[in-house]
Amino acid sequence: MFRSHTCGELRIQDVNKSVTLSGWVQTVRKFGSITFIDLRDRYGITQLLFSETLNEKLEANPLGREFVLQANGVVHERSNKNHNIPTGEIEIFVTDFNILNKSITPPFTIQDDTDGGDDLRMKYRFLDLRRQPVKNNLELRYAVGRSTRNYLHEHNFMDIETPFLIKSTPEGARDFVVPSRMNPGQFYALPQSPQTFKQLLMVSGYDRYYQIVKCFRDEDLRADRQPEFTQIDCEMAFVEQEDILNMFENLIKRIFKDVKNIDYNDAVERMTWEHAMWTYGNDKPDIRFDMNLCNLKFPAHTFPSQKDISSLINGNDFKVFDEAETVIAIAAPGCSEYTRKQTDELTEWVKRPQIGMKGLVYIKCNIDGTFKSSIDKFYSEEKLKNIANAVNAKAGDLIFILAGAEERTRKAASELRLYLGQQLGLRKPDEFKLLWVLDFPLFEYAEEENRWVARHHPFTSPKPSDIHTMINNNPVIENPTEYLKHPYANIKANAYDMVLNGNEIGGGSIRIYQKELQQKMFAALGMDEEEQHHKFGFLLGAFEYGAPPHGGIAFGFDRLCSILGGSESIRDFIAFPKNNSGRDVMIDAPSSIDKKQFEELQIKLDIKA
Amino acid sequence: MFRSHTCGELRIQDVNKSVTLSGWVQTVRKFGSITFIDLRDRYGITQLLFSETLNEKLEANPLGREFVLQANGVVHERSNKNHNIPTGEIEIFVTDFNILNKSITPPFTIQDDTDGGDDLRMKYRFLDLRRQPVKNNLELRYAVGRSTRNYLHEHNFMDIETPFLIKSTPEGARDFVVPSRMNPGQFYALPQSPQTFKQLLMVSGYDRYYQIVKCFRDEDLRADRQPEFTQIDCEMAFVEQEDILNMFENLIKRIFKDVKNIDYNDAVERMTWEHAMWTYGNDKPDIRFDMNLCNLKFPAHTFPSQKDISSLINGNDFKVFDEAETVIAIAAPGCSEYTRKQTDELTEWVKRPQIGMKGLVYIKCNIDGTFKSSIDKFYSEEKLKNIANAVNAKAGDLIFILAGAEERTRKAASELRLYLGQQLGLRKPDEFKLLWVLDFPLFEYAEEENRWVARHHPFTSPKPSDIHTMINNNPVIENPTEYLKHPYANIKANAYDMVLNGNEIGGGSIRIYQKELQQKMFAALGMDEEEQHHKFGFLLGAFEYGAPPHGGIAFGFDRLCSILGGSESIRDFIAFPKNNSGRDVMIDAPSSIDKKQFEELQIKLDIKA
Repeated sequence: MFRSHTCGELRIQDVNKSVTLSGWVQTVRKFGSITFIDLRDRYGITQLLFSETLNEKLEANPLGREFVLQANGVVHERSNKNHNIPTGEIEIFVTDFNILNKSITPPFTIQDDTDGGDDLRMKYRFLDLRRQPVKNNLELRYAVGRSTRNYLHEHNFMDIETPFLIKSTPEGARDFVVPSRMNPGQFYALPQSPQTFKQLLMVSGYDRYYQIVKCFRDEDLRADRQPEFTQIDCEMAFVEQEDILNMFENLIKRIFKDVKNIDYNDAVERMTWEHAMWTYGNDKPDIRFDMNLCNLKFPAHTFPSQKDISSLINGNDFKVFDEAETVIAIAAPGCSEYTRKQTDELTEWVKRPQIGMKGLVYIKCNIDGTFKSSIDKFYSEEKLKNIANAVNAKAGDLIFILAGAEERTRKAASELRLYLGQQLGLRKPDEFKLLWVLDFPLFEYAEEENRWVARHHPFTSPKPSDIHTMINNNPVIENPTEYLKHPYANIKANAYDMVLNGNEIGGGSIRIYQKELQQKMFAALGMDEEEQHHKFGFLLGAFEYGAPPHGGIAFGFDRLCSILGGSESIRDFIAFPKNNSGRDVMIDAPSSIDKKQFEELQIKLDIKA
Repeated sequence: MFRSHTCGELRIQDVNKSVTLSGWVQTVRKFGSITFIDLRDRYGITQLLFSETLNEKLEANPLGREFVLQANGVVHERSNKNHNIPTGEIEIFVTDFNILNKSITPPFTIQDDTDGGDDLRMKYRFLDLRRQPVKNNLELRYAVGRSTRNYLHEHNFMDIETPFLIKSTPEGARDFVVPSRMNPGQFYALPQSPQTFKQLLMVSGYDRYYQIVKCFRDEDLRADRQPEFTQIDCEMAFVEQEDILNMFENLIKRIFKDVKNIDYNDAVERMTWEHAMWTYGNDKPDIRFDMNLCNLKFPAHTFPSQKDISSLINGNDFKVFDEAETVIAIAAPGCSEYTRKQTDELTEWVKRPQIGMKGLVYIKCNIDGTFKSSIDKFYSEEKLKNIANAVNAKAGDLIFILAGAEERTRKAASELRLYLGQQLGLRKPDEFKLLWVLDFPLFEYAEEENRWVARHHPFTSPKPSDIHTMINNNPVIENPTEYLKHPYANIKANAYDMVLNGNEIGGGSIRIYQKELQQKMFAALGMDEEEQHHKFGFLLGAFEYGAPPHGGIAFGFDRLCSILGGSESIRDFIAFPKNNSGRDVMIDAPSSIDKKQFEELQIKLDIKA
């Protein structure tokens, strides 16, 4: 028996018990003839006291950091109590010990604030995983998974495993592929999601399916993307959008309760995609704070139902505004006293290539009711005041205005809003705000190919009221310059995204379940009948045998955990993550394979110079 | 809202309620002007009654098998109750209905005893999954998973995900590999098991890990093998073999209770590998029945500690026995009256190529105490009686004797025992008997390469008492013909298999956690230092930084489910299985990939003529 108790377990009530502990040496401290050792395991830290009778053995068997030690002893009350740790009232008076394994000096310290850089910690991930903050992250991840499974089980969902070796049907992201030795010349693909399989399970009558499942996308990586990632994947039959929204906002509320002990009793806000774009400049707004965008000017075809207030800025000989497609203002609350240095810094910030704006206009709404602006020579104080009213700015606020092409300007305004919100402390880390974004466009226009692409994926249903538009029109775009006039441009999707603090944590849709409509969708994406049959014949076939109405959602498990854990990086919540080149630097993968493997798989390299 | 209730929910108490049901049309029966429909969903079947007022609508919208139907109506008490189903006391008096989707005629009937053959059901797996027996299998699978997770959670295990894109280190089975686009010329491998990662987690201090996880092996397939399969994968630190056996026999007992409502209160039997081979002829004996093998003759080097009783048969001029390496007898209880036809059939059975014996000797132990044998001319009745005593045969039994080369004969005796046990009804389908098989040899001898191979895997520790033998001897086999005299031949592994009704459902070991011992193991397997470093440098490195003693086990989840479900085939318990060529015939995978995919991956085909 290696231990009678863990290192996080013993308390003052256990005094005088004989115990055996095993764990890692966190610290060794000598005071005269006495040696103190903090022994660490998954559950905590317990102080060991080695009296001078053990000095001879200690000298013969010197202990160092991260040695694995087994100690027998008796629980004593500490004279010098440590109230910061649960075991801090006791210590173990060691009677004998045994070094289970030695350790060479670790390349970085195993502490909350380690001295190890990112690369070193990735290479020695097995040591980084010993640090308490990383352990906390993995424990949170396990708790989120456990809470999810419990909730879904209580609601009659079944965990059903779908295959990992499937068929390559690239549509959107690239597939990872796997050569088949038994079928030379043919390849499996790793699933980007279990989408078609979960839909088949609905056709099979399984009604409520879920899986916490690995998915794979061969995309160029960014900090928050991994080639393999985990989804909470769900699907339900005989449901409408409302059923799904209710079921899954309650899942997230349950996770809040189980994992963070937060009672999220508020109704989850809902917002159309158009409102999100109009008011926040993006489709995953952080609604923990206001600072809404004010659209002083915008392309009418993009927001046909919105009121044009461009007369507030046009015709004042300020070319930047006059010539811009889009002009957007934001009021930063209480910032009217910003110094020149501060506004200059913000101007530099928006001029960085990542944001890409040419400049930043400001209007100070002074406390005394006067206005001061960088465009004073074009706009009278009265005109500035009218703009300030439109922006809903109050005395003491500072208005920022961005101007330029629609997409870039809106994105920049959205980024600026988040940046200011961060600076002003409005994005509180301990506040969580959920939001449903609804009514996305079903299609986006792909200019290079002059065809439609599915904004969500090709299995998403249009709104019921748009089905006849979709069925009864030819998806082909006759005149590329006027694609916005094509009836498909206005079709809305029966899709929904769940947003948490400005991050999309999940998305889904009511699916197409009629063969004719699915074929129309494939045709809209430029697939002829042969390609449809080759790639998705099994699904079209399944829709002929009594497919029920169904829909579902998938949550990004890694990201959900990272947001709940208060981190920007999903990597911190993955036990063995890959770096930005898709490498696992610890095991050094990917790597070369043997000649014999190439021969058996009947493939060879074809490296371009 | 598509439904107010499911098709398995309504009872006599619900009479007069207005309800809406949705489901699949199981049957349509017309009685005069009234139409009865059985409506089916995941939860059950409810009878719908369409009165003549709906006949016009029914004629305009004819219903067929597997149509998806939504029906509004009122719950009525049935006059003609069906006590075989929970909803059998009521029916729905339909007031209106709505066809949600049509179905063409399914290629086979959606019934417990379907008329569809294997191939057809695989192709239309989404329809086969509608059948109740298949649904029961997947529900059992989900229940086994749920029970496993609950038990392990209660025992402080953490579900930690390990990566799927890892490094190819083929040792034993072939890896599936995945070309890396971002690292041209390099490949990931899909894990054959998370073995090294779970060991790293122990080095990291995670102490109790589990995962229900997909694993991949590119092997030639048999009926009960799939290229992707699921493991219950577990590992613990600071444990000895006894801790693991206790923890995991209780897991299986818990599954018995949760899933089958069986109280398995007996102690789980334990048996050494040598005893299993000696007494049952294989290392996964079915101990639901006795019929132990009697080793009349055997190679002394294989069973050095067993008593030689070959004098019972040798020297009677019966060449078959005299010249055989191995002679094994079994007594079939109560079979002494078997006819010539029956013994001939059994002789043919052992002569089949799968068994490969040259013949079958029998001795009838007649009720009257006399003996009658196929070898009467060589053995006196007295001698037959002595053999019968050795075999522990009673009056009324029939003894079968096999003779030949050791391995083949032992395997044949084992197969014959199982076959007779099956025929005699001794392998009761509702009886479950667990068994631990212990003390396996650590190594097997690979003749072609004149080296050792790990019987379990290269991370399995020898018994503590054998560690010094392993460390202090050169693993190289100087004289191939005398490999049995090498000290490594007698090293026993700290490994254990769990056997259920003659099937290996799980296996594991206490692992090596010392760098020096691990290097010795790799060397024994013929790996030089460079190869060790290339393949397992990360693990050897990890062992330098304080690796704790640890061990674990993995259960074959698919097989465990199939045995609990009373089936021979794991395929019946997998939602979307592959056929014996590794194909998913439903989605038609694997398949060809695009030119663009080859270009991006920088590989090409190299098909042999």
